[in-house]
Amino acid sequence: MWGDDLGEVPRTLLDSAVRCFAERGFHATTTRDVSAGAGLSPAALYVHFPSKEAVLYEITRRGHESALAVVRDPAVTDIPEAATRLRAIVAAFVAWHARHHVVARVCQYELASLTAEHHEDIRRLRRRFNTVFRDAVVTGTAQGVFATGDVDRVVRAMLSLGIDLVRWYRLGGADSPEDLGAFYGELAVRMVTAGA
Amino acid sequence: MWGDDLGEVPRTLLDSAVRCFAERGFHATTTRDVSAGAGLSPAALYVHFPSKEAVLYEITRRGHESALAVVRDPAVTDIPEAATRLRAIVAAFVAWHARHHVVARVCQYELASLTAEHHEDIRRLRRRFNTVFRDAVVTGTAQGVFATGDVDRVVRAMLSLGIDLVRWYRLGGADSPEDLGAFYGELAVRMVTAGA
Repeated sequence: MWGDDLGEVPRTLLDSAVRCFAERGFHATTTRDVSAGAGLSPAALYVHFPSKEAVLYEITRRGHESALAVVRDPAVTDIPEAATRLRAIVAAFVAWHARHHVVARVCQYELASLTAEHHEDIRRLRRRFNTVFRDAVVTGTAQGVFATGDVDRVVRAMLSLGIDLVRWYRLGGADSPEDLGAFYGELAVRMVTAGA
Repeated sequence: MWGDDLGEVPRTLLDSAVRCFAERGFHATTTRDVSAGAGLSPAALYVHFPSKEAVLYEITRRGHESALAVVRDPAVTDIPEAATRLRAIVAAFVAWHARHHVVARVCQYELASLTAEHHEDIRRLRRRFNTVFRDAVVTGTAQGVFATGDVDRVVRAMLSLGIDLVRWYRLGGADSPEDLGAFYGELAVRMVTAGA
């Protein structure tokens, strides 16, 4: 998740921060909480990150990049038939969010705590998800297999399905990440298929 | 929203608490913040509520009851034709969440901060939403207009669409609450309609 460019201590700090932010929220977490959760002395965080917000930014940026990699995998985006491609994109997006639901919760619910500059960086990454989903829908409409309609609104609804599960999904329940991904992939195709 | 059984001061306190919890989260909000936001002295909250958690419970309970009233309106639930009924239920649910997105954010994202007993009360209310959605889907399957499938999973997906919009919806944008409700009502019907 965090990438090979980070040493073990910063990674442990990011893991601890994810747990703290997901449980109590960014505002109610102190840098001492994050350091203590990593088994380090109170000021240890500042050796590796300039601020609590910088920790949130690293989590959010690396989380988004990890999710983006699965939906931009050429094995998915190069599928020529639009319904199959859309099903695969949604399945990958949903399975990632289910598997990494704690990191994803921080990525989705704490954006307002980023600085304006960092927030803009993340918005830029988020627009790339829209592009991947949008391309599949537009391709299917051009191929005549999807109904015409409001592409931006339907893409937002598909993204909502994947994102909202981080609120309620827990690993070890009835649905594996892949089961839920396959089910939502089918729903997404139906959302762009006109009634019989 | 808050009901006629509450006086003006408690209502002002609930309004202030909604703003505080939605902006900074329950854990990072103090009872002084809530009182100050209502223009009252620091301890004023305790005249009306025994604790900060009791305030969250009142918001969450009254919020859920208000949303439940719109989807259980007989003008909606008595519609005999299942697709029309499902469209109307989803439209009402989505429009309520869009119009009241700040209260709804607190209702959805702070449940873990309730006491076990209060949490169970809210879970009981939440099961009633499932029942309303479920009845419409099951009716449509029995009428032969909806595809057979996993009713619980598809109902959860429909609820997710309505709930996730509280994360991103803002009043005054391109979609009115009613526009978005109508659009999502149509998506919900498609979700239970098999491909052509």
